Parts: sequence; structure tokens; C-alpha cells
Amino acid sequence: MTSLLLTGIGSLVTNDPARSELLGEIRDAALVIEGSKVAWVGSRRDAPAADSALDLGGRAVIPGFVDSHAHLVFAGDRAEEFAARMSGTPYSAGGIRTTVAATRQATDEVLTANVARLVTEMRRQGTTTVEIKSGYGLTVADEARALQIAGQFTEETTYLGAHVVPAEFADDPAGYVALVTGPMLEASSRHAKWVDVFVERGAFDEDQARAILTAGQGKGLQARVHANQLGEGPGVQLACSVGAAAADHCTYLTDVDVDALASTGVVAGLLPAVEFSTRSPYPDARRLLDAGVTVALATDCNPGSGYSSSMPLCIALAVREMHMTPAEALWSATAGGAASLRRTDIGRLVPGARADLAVLDAPSYIHLAYRPGVPLVTQTFVGGRPV
Amino acid sequence: MTSLLLTGIGSLVTNDPARSELLGEIRDAALVIEGSKVAWVGSRRDAPAADSALDLGGRAVIPGFVDSHAHLVFAGDRAEEFAARMSGTPYSAGGIRTTVAATRQATDEVLTANVARLVTEMRRQGTTTVEIKSGYGLTVADEARALQIAGQFTEETTYLGAHVVPAEFADDPAGYVALVTGPMLEASSRHAKWVDVFVERGAFDEDQARAILTAGQGKGLQARVHANQLGEGPGVQLACSVGAAAADHCTYLTDVDVDALASTGVVAGLLPAVEFSTRSPYPDARRLLDAGVTVALATDCNPGSGYSSSMPLCIALAVREMHMTPAEALWSATAGGAASLRRTDIGRLVPGARADLAVLDAPSYIHLAYRPGVPLVTQTFVGGRPV
Repeated sequence: MTSLLLTGIGSLVTNDPARSELLGEIRDAALVIEGSKVAWVGSRRDAPAADSALDLGGRAVIPGFVDSHAHLVFAGDRAEEFAARMSGTPYSAGGIRTTVAATRQATDEVLTANVARLVTEMRRQGTTTVEIKSGYGLTVADEARALQIAGQFTEETTYLGAHVVPAEFADDPAGYVALVTGPMLEASSRHAKWVDVFVERGAFDEDQARAILTAGQGKGLQARVHANQLGEGPGVQLACSVGAAAADHCTYLTDVDVDALASTGVVAGLLPAVEFSTRSPYPDARRLLDAGVTVALATDCNPGSGYSSSMPLCIALAVREMHMTPAEALWSATAGGAASLRRTDIGRLVPGARADLAVLDAPSYIHLAYRPGVPLVTQTFVGGRPV
Repeated sequence: MTSLLLTGIGSLVTNDPARSELLGEIRDAALVIEGSKVAWVGSRRDAPAADSALDLGGRAVIPGFVDSHAHLVFAGDRAEEFAARMSGTPYSAGGIRTTVAATRQATDEVLTANVARLVTEMRRQGTTTVEIKSGYGLTVADEARALQIAGQFTEETTYLGAHVVPAEFADDPAGYVALVTGPMLEASSRHAKWVDVFVERGAFDEDQARAILTAGQGKGLQARVHANQLGEGPGVQLACSVGAAAADHCTYLTDVDVDALASTGVVAGLLPAVEFSTRSPYPDARRLLDAGVTVALATDCNPGSGYSSSMPLCIALAVREMHMTPAEALWSATAGGAASLRRTDIGRLVPGARADLAVLDAPSYIHLAYRPGVPLVTQTFVGGRPV
């Protein structure tokens, strides 16, 4: 197993929970990779020898971004719908059906190429783990197909047959829930780690969502929930009551919702690129942080409500619009994402963790918020290898 | 002179004023470059032969961005000031003095390398022309030095000795104006195309600014103005009365200001990345556009109020925050910037124009706003050559 010494690191963010400060930052640092893992981190002057060395010339190194919410298996784009929305047409969940129609018609090759393109784009921007949901197939075969394709790119695959009720079940939502909890789950569960539901007016109500999540759990899937995006609702408390890992969106919360997240440890996933692209109010991150809730930042990359793959943009928006500090935002985009996926081997750079990291053309992670829009990631390592 | 055919262009934005629609967009297009210029544009099926050809596989091509407002000659960074501002410390023009101190101490080599790094970063993001201001030297020698360095990268150099009154003249602003209009202008004018003043409470008042602009014009420089950024003031009307090319910022305008811009044709430069990074209200672009004012979008890239070099971010913010259409935003970031610099050879892709263009990894320019934060520019051509 060969080792690589990264040295000349101006600022190394470790997210080491054993260090006192949130990011566990080490200035003038070095890091040793052995195989696919981090073997050593510390001050540059204490660095051990390694088979080879790379001097980063004072650049910052951060854990690779963990994007815990993305919808990448689809065909078509909705640029015109976006332009219309910017001229005043409000966002509604019904637009999902446009993408469902295009996705069902697409070949496996087209869908796979689309995911590959987006994953490559994400890696160039420093993302080293991405959760990928199904949810644009909405038939037994198309959901299973989406998850098989997703599984070629990530182990964090999420069965989202309950994204929206497809047009052909418009008059029979109960029939669709029976499909999602029955044959579709049967075909999908062996390709998925997670089960997810869009709990929202226009999508699935509390009882339907509970049935879907518990059916998934019965097949060995872990739960995560789209909750409280477009208005107050039962999603967050449902997530807490079924033991979900994450409640994502959290734009409209009651005090009871916030208390439930804090007391259960369910991670609140905030997706500010969606609020940017739908011109919606941003979630109140400070309220969550001040209540002790664990916050993850993710892109929600999808062709409808927000087609950004950029975790740096999410960080810049979290600081500008949600009043997170640059440190809180970076933590949430890395360690927070890992918590949302119940992973401790990623989102941190400590001995034994996966060597998933991003090199920034900047002296400090603060530049991710200080220099919005600028592609600062110059190199991304996944499992110890540059990609 | 060799020729290159770019073909397979899914969407070509020409900004040809002879075409009826704002962007003069051609679908399924081709473009021929001869030497440094555009020789031909049109439908792919009508394309003439050329010495070589490059198939862009359906990607969009746009004119290179014309960034008409940037402060790139400086040393140091102000990431900590940024982080403090995001925690509630308001922005003030006085922070400029921090950068002045660092810039004066820097060697020519350091300053030149900094500009080179930022210009390279801009080109990677599709910017093919950038205006570069002095203004962090504020001595005779340091201003002339800044302009000489800027001139290595652009012909659009701007003398901004009147950026702020430096600390050593705090008790003698009249003495500083005498320096700016006298020996400093003498030393700077042969390295500059433009003269600029920051007209603002805490910087220069109307009488001082008028004296500086007219002195510059007397030396053959053309005028542009920092106007109405932090509050209402005389900047815009001064710009109109002295025949300036542009009044930049325009955040706080009266009806009289808007009328003056519309009737004189002075270009309003909007710099939304500054409002993003200072958490300030955005300019009212719709009011300007609806009044018939020519609008340019620019980055204002600088280490204090907004350190983004990203024209795509400016476009995304213009659409999201200032309610410009994606087409208006792109026009303002290309043809609008050219108008601000009084250029007709750039900002458009028509026969005879410079072959300055950007290739997008997207089927349409709309993706610049639809996919915020994503580095969509895959290739940039300056003067006919890939950079």
C-alpha cells in the first residue's frame, strides 16, 4: 500500500470531533494518505515520511463535500420552466411529472450518461459523496432501473417511488401507495439503502407517508423524508417518530418541529439552492443551530426546483442568506452531510477516515463564502486518488 | 490567416443589433473564425468550408463576458473582514485603506502575479475583456505602477487615484485632490484609458469628483464614475453632466437620476455580487430597463466589498434578485459591458468582431441562471484562440 504526503497545506479542516473548535482546523499542516484512507494529519513540521509527496503551496484542504440530497437520474431539462418561474410563475410539485415523462422514455444509456455527467461535474466542485434518489420513474421497472443506475455511482441510493403521484394514478392515490409499498418496493429495495417520501400538500399526506416509510424499513431500508418545504406540515414530526436519519428542506417549521429535531437528533437538511432557484424564503438556520439541531447542507440538484450541483454555492448562500458562519456552513456541507447519511468514515479528515478531500485555490475555507461563484476547487481526491 | 469552423453549436448568441430579438440567437448554428476575428455566423447547414473544424456537440456559444468594473491590482485578502461583516459588522468604504497598506508594501512581482491569477480565473469563467482599475496605491508612484501592471493584461485601464482619501491625507482632503489632479494624474494618464472617482460620503464629494474627472478628461482620459452605491447622492447626475461612459453601482437612485441616465445614454453598471457579499439591497434593474437605460453587469471583483470574479454568478443574481430575464442579464454581461467601455468590436459575435467567445457545457445560455454556481464554461476563446 503506497503512501502520499500532502504538505504545504495552508489550512487543513479536519472536522475532528476530538478537537475543541468546530472545524478542527490545523494551520501549516500536512496529511498522509495510505491506500484509500487518511493515515496521519498534523503540523507540517511533524509530518512522517511517505512514498511520495505533493506540496500544495499554502492551499487549503477540506474534507470532500457530502451532498446528502440529490435527484440525478432523469432526462430532459426544464430551463424554460425556470425562466417562466423567474417571471412570476410559482413553483409547484406538479412539474415533477414533466421530468417523469421524459425519464420513462429515455434509454438506460442516456440516463447513465446524464448521471455520469452530473457526478463528474460535482467531483470537479469538490463533492466526494452524493446521495442519489430515484423518483422520476414511478413505475416498478423505472424505479428499479433508476436505482440500479444510481448504484453505479454511489452506495447512498434512495428509493423515492413516493416523489409524487404519477398522472395515471391521479384518481387513485391509494392504489399508487399500494404499488409503492408493494411491488415497486419489492423490485427496488435490493438496490437501495434509503427510503424517502415527499410529504407535502400535492404529494403525500402523513398517513400515506408513514405507510411508505415503515414498509421500506420492513425491507431493511433506512428512512429519510422531504419535509416542510412549501408550508408547515407533518413531515418533520413524522421523520422524528419513525427514526429517520434526516428531514430535508425544513423551510416552514413550528417550535414543536424544532424541538422534535433537537431531541431526536434527526438531521435537518437545508437546501438553499432551491430557495435561490424558486425565489422562496430561506429556512431559518440560526433557529435550528441555536436549538442544537444538527444541520446538513445539500444541493437538492434536480431539473425542476434547483438545478445546481454546487456545494460551494450552498455554502455561500448559507452564509449570506441564512446567517450561518463560514465555519458552520462548511461543517454542515461535510460532517453534517455525513451525519445525514449516518456515516462516520467520511466528512472528516482523521486517521482511519476515507481520504476524500478537496484542495482549494485559496488560503482558507472562508474563501468558499468570500468568493461566491468562483470555482475554487483545484483538485478532488476520492478514496485517496485524484479524480 | 487560418480559419476555424465551430459547428454543432446548439444555440449561438450573437447580440447582433441588426437582428430583431435582443440576443440575436441562432439555433443549430456555426461560426467561422479567421485570425482574431469572426468571419461568418449562421445556420450550421449554410456554413462555409474552413481550414479546420471543431464540433461542439450541441453546446451553446455566447460572446465572451465583458467585465466592465474590476479592481484587481492589490495585495492581501480580507477574508476575516468578510466573515465579521456576515456576523453583522456593516460595510464601509474605509476598509479600502487596509488593502492600500498591503498593496504599497507588495513588490511588482507579487502584484503582477495576483492580477495574472485573477485574470486567468476570469478567463476560465468566460470573461474575455476586463476593465482593471488602480486605486490601492494612492501615491504618485503606486498608482502609476498599478496602471502599468494592469496594462499588461488589458487595454481597459482605469486611473482611480480617487478611490478614497488615504490615511496620510485624512486632515487634508483638498491636498489629496490636488495630488490626484496634478502629479498623480501626470504620472498615471499615459498608462490609462479611463479616469474614475468614488463619489460617496466618506470618499469624494461632488465638487472634488468633478474636478478630478475634468482634469482627467483634460489629459485625454474618458470618464466613468462609482455612483450612488451606499446612498443617494450626486454621482449619477455628475456622470451624466460630464459625459461619462458609465455610472456604476446605482443602488440608490431618484427619478431624476433614472431620467438623466435614460436621456444621456450613460450606461448604468450594476454589480450584484457586491450586494451579495455586503448583504445590501440590490439595485432596481427593472426600473432602469423599463426607463430605457442601458444596463451593464460587472463583478466589481475586489478584496473588500465583493471578491467574486464570476460573471455567471452576476447573471444568476441579476435574474434571481433583480428580476432581469436570463436574456437581459446575458446581454448586459456582454454587449452591455461593451457599451460601458464604448466598444463595438466586442460583446457581440458578428462578422468583423473580435472572436472572443465562451463555450458552455449546456444547450442554452439560460443555464447560466438555471444552474447557479456550476462552472459551465468549458472553453474560452480570446482573439480567436483558446485560452
